[in-house]
Amino acid sequence: MYSFKNDYSEGAHPRILQALVETNLIQEDGYGGDQFTQKAIELIKQHIGNDDVDVHLLSGGTQTNLIAISAFLKPHEAAIAASTGHIFTHETGAIEATGHKIIAVDTKDGKLTPAHVEQVLNDHPDEHMVKPKLVYISNSTEIGTIYQKEELIQLSETCKKNNLLLFMDGARLGSALCSKENDLELSAIPSLVDVFYIGGTKNGALLGEALILCREALKEDFRYHMKQKGALLAKGRVLGIQFQELFKDNLYFELASHANEMAEKLNNELKKEGFSFLTASPSNQIFPIFSNALIKELQTKFAFHIWEEVDKEHSAIRLVTSWATKESEVVAFVEAIKGRAL
Amino acid sequence: MYSFKNDYSEGAHPRILQALVETNLIQEDGYGGDQFTQKAIELIKQHIGNDDVDVHLLSGGTQTNLIAISAFLKPHEAAIAASTGHIFTHETGAIEATGHKIIAVDTKDGKLTPAHVEQVLNDHPDEHMVKPKLVYISNSTEIGTIYQKEELIQLSETCKKNNLLLFMDGARLGSALCSKENDLELSAIPSLVDVFYIGGTKNGALLGEALILCREALKEDFRYHMKQKGALLAKGRVLGIQFQELFKDNLYFELASHANEMAEKLNNELKKEGFSFLTASPSNQIFPIFSNALIKELQTKFAFHIWEEVDKEHSAIRLVTSWATKESEVVAFVEAIKGRAL
Amino acid sequence: MYSFKNDYSEGAHPRILQALVETNLIQEDGYGGDQFTQKAIELIKQHIGNDDVDVHLLSGGTQTNLIAISAFLKPHEAAIAASTGHIFTHETGAIEATGHKIIAVDTKDGKLTPAHVEQVLNDHPDEHMVKPKLVYISNSTEIGTIYQKEELIQLSETCKKNNLLLFMDGARLGSALCSKENDLELSAIPSLVDVFYIGGTKNGALLGEALILCREALKEDFRYHMKQKGALLAKGRVLGIQFQELFKDNLYFELASHANEMAEKLNNELKKEGFSFLTASPSNQIFPIFSNALIKELQTKFAFHIWEEVDKEHSAIRLVTSWATKESEVVAFVEAIKGRAL
Amino acid sequence: MYSFKNDYSEGAHPRILQALVETNLIQEDGYGGDQFTQKAIELIKQHIGNDDVDVHLLSGGTQTNLIAISAFLKPHEAAIAASTGHIFTHETGAIEATGHKIIAVDTKDGKLTPAHVEQVLNDHPDEHMVKPKLVYISNSTEIGTIYQKEELIQLSETCKKNNLLLFMDGARLGSALCSKENDLELSAIPSLVDVFYIGGTKNGALLGEALILCREALKEDFRYHMKQKGALLAKGRVLGIQFQELFKDNLYFELASHANEMAEKLNNELKKEGFSFLTASPSNQIFPIFSNALIKELQTKFAFHIWEEVDKEHSAIRLVTSWATKESEVVAFVEAIKGRAL
Repeated sequence: MYSFKNDYSEGAHPRILQALVETNLIQEDGYGGDQFTQKAIELIKQHIGNDDVDVHLLSGGTQTNLIAISAFLKPHEAAIAASTGHIFTHETGAIEATGHKIIAVDTKDGKLTPAHVEQVLNDHPDEHMVKPKLVYISNSTEIGTIYQKEELIQLSETCKKNNLLLFMDGARLGSALCSKENDLELSAIPSLVDVFYIGGTKNGALLGEALILCREALKEDFRYHMKQKGALLAKGRVLGIQFQELFKDNLYFELASHANEMAEKLNNELKKEGFSFLTASPSNQIFPIFSNALIKELQTKFAFHIWEEVDKEHSAIRLVTSWATKESEVVAFVEAIKGRAL
Repeated sequence: MYSFKNDYSEGAHPRILQALVETNLIQEDGYGGDQFTQKAIELIKQHIGNDDVDVHLLSGGTQTNLIAISAFLKPHEAAIAASTGHIFTHETGAIEATGHKIIAVDTKDGKLTPAHVEQVLNDHPDEHMVKPKLVYISNSTEIGTIYQKEELIQLSETCKKNNLLLFMDGARLGSALCSKENDLELSAIPSLVDVFYIGGTKNGALLGEALILCREALKEDFRYHMKQKGALLAKGRVLGIQFQELFKDNLYFELASHANEMAEKLNNELKKEGFSFLTASPSNQIFPIFSNALIKELQTKFAFHIWEEVDKEHSAIRLVTSWATKESEVVAFVEAIKGRAL
Repeated sequence: MYSFKNDYSEGAHPRILQALVETNLIQEDGYGGDQFTQKAIELIKQHIGNDDVDVHLLSGGTQTNLIAISAFLKPHEAAIAASTGHIFTHETGAIEATGHKIIAVDTKDGKLTPAHVEQVLNDHPDEHMVKPKLVYISNSTEIGTIYQKEELIQLSETCKKNNLLLFMDGARLGSALCSKENDLELSAIPSLVDVFYIGGTKNGALLGEALILCREALKEDFRYHMKQKGALLAKGRVLGIQFQELFKDNLYFELASHANEMAEKLNNELKKEGFSFLTASPSNQIFPIFSNALIKELQTKFAFHIWEEVDKEHSAIRLVTSWATKESEVVAFVEAIKGRAL
Repeated sequence: MYSFKNDYSEGAHPRILQALVETNLIQEDGYGGDQFTQKAIELIKQHIGNDDVDVHLLSGGTQTNLIAISAFLKPHEAAIAASTGHIFTHETGAIEATGHKIIAVDTKDGKLTPAHVEQVLNDHPDEHMVKPKLVYISNSTEIGTIYQKEELIQLSETCKKNNLLLFMDGARLGSALCSKENDLELSAIPSLVDVFYIGGTKNGALLGEALILCREALKEDFRYHMKQKGALLAKGRVLGIQFQELFKDNLYFELASHANEMAEKLNNELKKEGFSFLTASPSNQIFPIFSNALIKELQTKFAFHIWEEVDKEHSAIRLVTSWATKESEVVAFVEAIKGRAL
């Protein structure tokens, strides 16, 4: 049964495995002191077009979120997030476990706006409440939407004006940046946010996220935080080799583009067939609404998550594509729903 | 320049890489729900000869230590460790960062005894001090020594009598169990300790530690703790495939044996040459004492850590061997120190 | 200007000060080992009619909440609270600072129901989310409402069925129990909740809350938690003497009854005048709705908090009465609003 | 039986109780917004002779230590303390519970020197270990010794040079400053340390410590930390009234001087009789060495702590005097040991 459950169902892009094999017996220093990690960092900086950032390679999204946020906040400071934000709903209280409250805001599309942020600031006037200090956004969001450049500029200005840090969870940044609706350049991000990451796990790596620290004040001692939270891999080379491969040319973006194309194809065909969607998503996660009967049928041939009940007879499901998604399976899925939208 | 700096200078044993390549495009569930992880757990249980344990695969030693210890202790409870213990000296306060004090005990050989533990209990009589609750030991220890079975039995009884958990850090358990001086069977460990782990990172894996929970009370909800601390890899298969390969036959033990043989050869030759040692180590780390002049010379040909000053003219260095250590380089090292012991 | 801002504007009931003076030079052991604390605990148990509870005296509400909740929860466990709950809104993230998420539920009257709790449990099915473990309620609530006995019985059964702890914040328990609408006996509480406290600070003491642990499993080592969080006062007698005085007869309840009578008088007169209220409160906090013009006028004569905007022209204010509220000032307030309800 | 167990056996100095009684019914704002707290802060600043400090009133020593240290340190930063330091031995891991390691140093007299600090810095070179950031000292120390001004100047310079914060626990600062051997002026302290506190609980108050923040960078948002840790008393006036009374003239210093005189008298008489001491203490705690037989006898007439075994036949005891110590009881104690030094 073919799975559209997520973008981490397979291993790594073959070029990455090849690189692991080829470098395997070269002796290197541990904990990221290896040549591969150093080269990967250099390549990432070149892609960003910015040498003033610090780059650290970590293992996964929750780990990256919790280390960065806890490193940057003082004990009384809190993060603001959409109520759909990964840190609020899907990380087992990882941020709170480091001592920090997340102030959740309901949004219609998973994206935070200046108005959301300002409302939270108004609601937290004094020392009887936490002090909002960091704004957490995801791009693409957990429901597939992406930030337009102008939206990000507005949010960034609001954060600067109010002395808030802006953190962009980029677990699926590849898909966001390669979306047809995207107008945000990778090189523009460091001036707009204080910290972000480029997700590898969900775009072709075995594991790995590249965290980019864009402000001087956030850089100091960051490796201490990584070590303290168990994120400094003895064989840091494992991460370095992977990111070196992803960024030594445009592999990272080619993989994301393939994922998006597969999602777009699904999207277009479903629309053509008359299905509606929970959200309009231009990235690699789409949320079509099917009758429960159709869902039952589809489950015999494909694996996917049921996202939420829409009404008694219908539910939204989540279809996720990746660098590894086979076009033939997309075609098969479309075949399976043809003429079933009535 | 050949490195004896540590046992994580190379990548993984080739069979592991081969397995990653072969399984790469098989779709699997995330977060350890894959067939490889399930199979690895089954194989590890078979090697232990015990089906009543729970096995979890994690990424590294510090991560494993901090998740397990923080999962098991209440806020006022503390760990007891040798002052050479990895958690006390070399993990950037990872345990304290989860809220728990480590009570350090000076030892002569890196090993805790019942007398050490009882002294700590006597020194902590009431609620004005932390309550000692967990005894942390490493096998092999950070200075290369190993626990004899009888020592472990005594320590285990002391812990049981005093309602203390016994935790064995097995980052180098392979080397300990394959040591010529070892009389402890893997299968005996679950009855002697409450929790331990089988280190992969330092014995042939790219990354990975297999944590073994031996008591019912420690098993509940453990995956919540893994997720909360950022240790539940989306592609959990990466760990599963590696441990499946290491334990589908005796690869894990063959790799450790090779490391030990290389260390033993170094050890024997150095002894024969008249050098003395900081500690008597039967495992894959040895600590010979050289004149500073000789150290300087050796540093032009080999990489290693200077461990500590012995007197103004001499220092102990640390030589670490691994599954990947080449015998020819061991021979070269021995050549380089021949006749230099005067 | 007379203040209806809160119930902690004055010092202590004169009998408490008198007791402090009379016992002042008696030498006693520190940290609650004094005769007064022991006697106070005995008296409180008598009032509860239950000798199987443990009683601890602490300094304030936030301190009590954070120590108890962090003592009872494991790292991955969370508290459920109404979104108006004190721990969620007004304690500067004190609970999160101990590592635990609070799952907030919107309610119409500040009270949690079995349906609220069950919905939260449904929304938290696995290890990717926190595990709900403790239900936090306040009686009286932060908006003046109280729990009827039957409501508490239902909630208690839901908690027991789902293995959840039920925690009652009793900062204003005196006012709740002495309310005319109350049908809950103090003696019934230990069978319904797992832990609660009897607030002293807001009912006549200088400072002090009496925490009641009603389950064996929660009692162990509790003083360690108090000490660790800085709550074990060297002169524990300060708390003991106060609670001894409050509970050696019915002083505690007489003070709460006076507060309620003053609130009721305000309530009745405001109703008679035709004013409406944000919530129907039978305790010592009431929330009448006034025109902004009237509020401005009243502010020249009385101090109080503006609670929230109701519409552009009207706001709800909070009036709080206490053991020390003077009836003459209540009368003066009523005079000031007479005929102003149009 | 008269107690020399500690300096918190009685209530408060009568003038403090009198002030509580006289101000009791004046309505004031909560949480330190009252006139008494404001006046107390002003008076303390006048005594210090420095208006550039921030003063906060807290309830006790452990609370003050944990709030200040956790407010100032980032997650990977650690405190350095003497192994006799109160935070290391006697606060149930309160500092570690906020996430920070304490690096303990053995000293001969309970005092840290520049050499101690520099050794710790040398031992913590990189991100695999915590980063030492704060030096914790007590004055007077837990074993009765005090810092000479020149010692403090040296330590302060070492801290500044190495970018370390210097924190002085002043639970018994009154006794230190009023010691005959003291040459440190209260007014000199803010230029030498970054933060210190003036202990009230052990010098005549019911409860209360006045924390003095001497550096701009430490002042921001401090009340958030107090609130979050449960230290912002609703009736903050309780602390304000007490410190106002202690510092409106020289009461604080008169009380400490009395305690010291009583200790000195004991000290002199014991010396004259030929007894020796564990440490030479010029403050209100002394540690004479008695035969175990004599100790047994004395325990029938006086209460005190046995500090530690000196040899099989002798132990050191701790005698503590306070503002409330009666000279007649000192005389009685001296009588009881006369001629018993053989």
